Amino acid sequence: MMQYETRKRSIFKAISWRTLATLTTAAIVFVFTGEFTLAITVGLLEVFAKMALYFFHERMWQKIGFGRKEVPSFVLWFTGLPASGKKALANAVYEQLHGQKLKVERLDGLDVRPLFPETGFSPEEVNRHVKRSGHLCSMLEKNGVIVVASFVSPYRESRDFARKLATNFVEVYMKTTVEACERRDERGHYAKARAGEYRYFPGVDVEYEEPISPELVIDIDNLTVDQAARQVTRYLQKNILYI
Amino acid sequence: MMQYETRKRSIFKAISWRTLATLTTAAIVFVFTGEFTLAITVGLLEVFAKMALYFFHERMWQKIGFGRKEVPSFVLWFTGLPASGKKALANAVYEQLHGQKLKVERLDGLDVRPLFPETGFSPEEVNRHVKRSGHLCSMLEKNGVIVVASFVSPYRESRDFARKLATNFVEVYMKTTVEACERRDERGHYAKARAGEYRYFPGVDVEYEEPISPELVIDIDNLTVDQAARQVTRYLQKNILYI
Repeated sequence: MMQYETRKRSIFKAISWRTLATLTTAAIVFVFTGEFTLAITVGLLEVFAKMALYFFHERMWQKIGFGRKEVPSFVLWFTGLPASGKKALANAVYEQLHGQKLKVERLDGLDVRPLFPETGFSPEEVNRHVKRSGHLCSMLEKNGVIVVASFVSPYRESRDFARKLATNFVEVYMKTTVEACERRDERGHYAKARAGEYRYFPGVDVEYEEPISPELVIDIDNLTVDQAARQVTRYLQKNILYI
Repeated sequence: MMQYETRKRSIFKAISWRTLATLTTAAIVFVFTGEFTLAITVGLLEVFAKMALYFFHERMWQKIGFGRKEVPSFVLWFTGLPASGKKALANAVYEQLHGQKLKVERLDGLDVRPLFPETGFSPEEVNRHVKRSGHLCSMLEKNGVIVVASFVSPYRESRDFARKLATNFVEVYMKTTVEACERRDERGHYAKARAGEYRYFPGVDVEYEEPISPELVIDIDNLTVDQAARQVTRYLQKNILYI
């Protein structure tokens, strides 16, 4: 068990419970006997005997795993054309999950690339890059870490590879059009691709292969980031987190 | 919090505590009044009132983080010549940690290589491979996962890089000689290196750079795997785990 409870926590629980419980006992004894002194004496004796017992009862339960659950981990995978808004949405969802004190790792295509420095952008190399990232995601997931990943990941082959490695894979497809992305593209990547400066640019000179059955489709052109994030977290609450 | 307690656990704790506590109350009342019926009545009333209260008391504490600790994670990094026994020792330590229900990931040089398929064996490439593996280790460590890594990792530069990325880095140096490793080498790697089939083979045609201040030095030629594993776990218990 990675998490455990300190002896201090057990002592504080013993005190807070004893306060509550002894007042109840004393009240019951008083109601039945009308004797104030007896009620106090029983109460006081109880305080010492039971506080010690409560402490040992807590320490015993500390060793019992029954009823202690882990929040399930999962891989939340955002896919879509360049400049489809994956990164902003993934960041928003990450912040929400992180705020709930869950263990979450955020992986973005661009952040992961320096780990694999020789990787180019040909379909074969992109497939390899996405598959490696899938390995990384599932290794984290297997160890109880929630992964929020955003990768253009334009090819079905490597997305499906990442899906098969994971236990809980949630594919979120950013549904939009090349035109809308081009308008949104502040960094001028589409312009450079059109000018021939980039090769293999999804939506320009290679196809972005739409997911066939993604867990979620986000109509990002008609939603704010907040609305879209709510859609994602609602899905997670309902289908994976359950708490 | 990745771990939580179910309502069922709280109900069972309420019952087990109540059994213990009510018997105490009834005994105290009986000793003071000598009245068996009164003792039973107080006991019964207490059962219902306090079991409900105990349940809510548990649910309240479920929301309180105080005194709930996480076992610290760390990167346990085995380094040494090829055939110095890293893998066997790392496996033994992994099994022990895993048996204690800790979250542990096992990474071995050879298992990680397929993730980075274009990596060769020149010093530069090995440094790159080890640095990437260091990234992977620290990403897992940061997310509460204990990492048991075994890499020849013959160069100080990349080992120190991995150390700097980690929060708790435990470098375990397998102290032995090239001759001893050569005798131990069942897979015939040294013979192939001597025959010129491999290049850049640590101990044969490139130097294995000994760690300058490793956390642990294992005199593997004079220890059984079990003895060495105990040495490692004793270090971890004393310096990192504390539980």
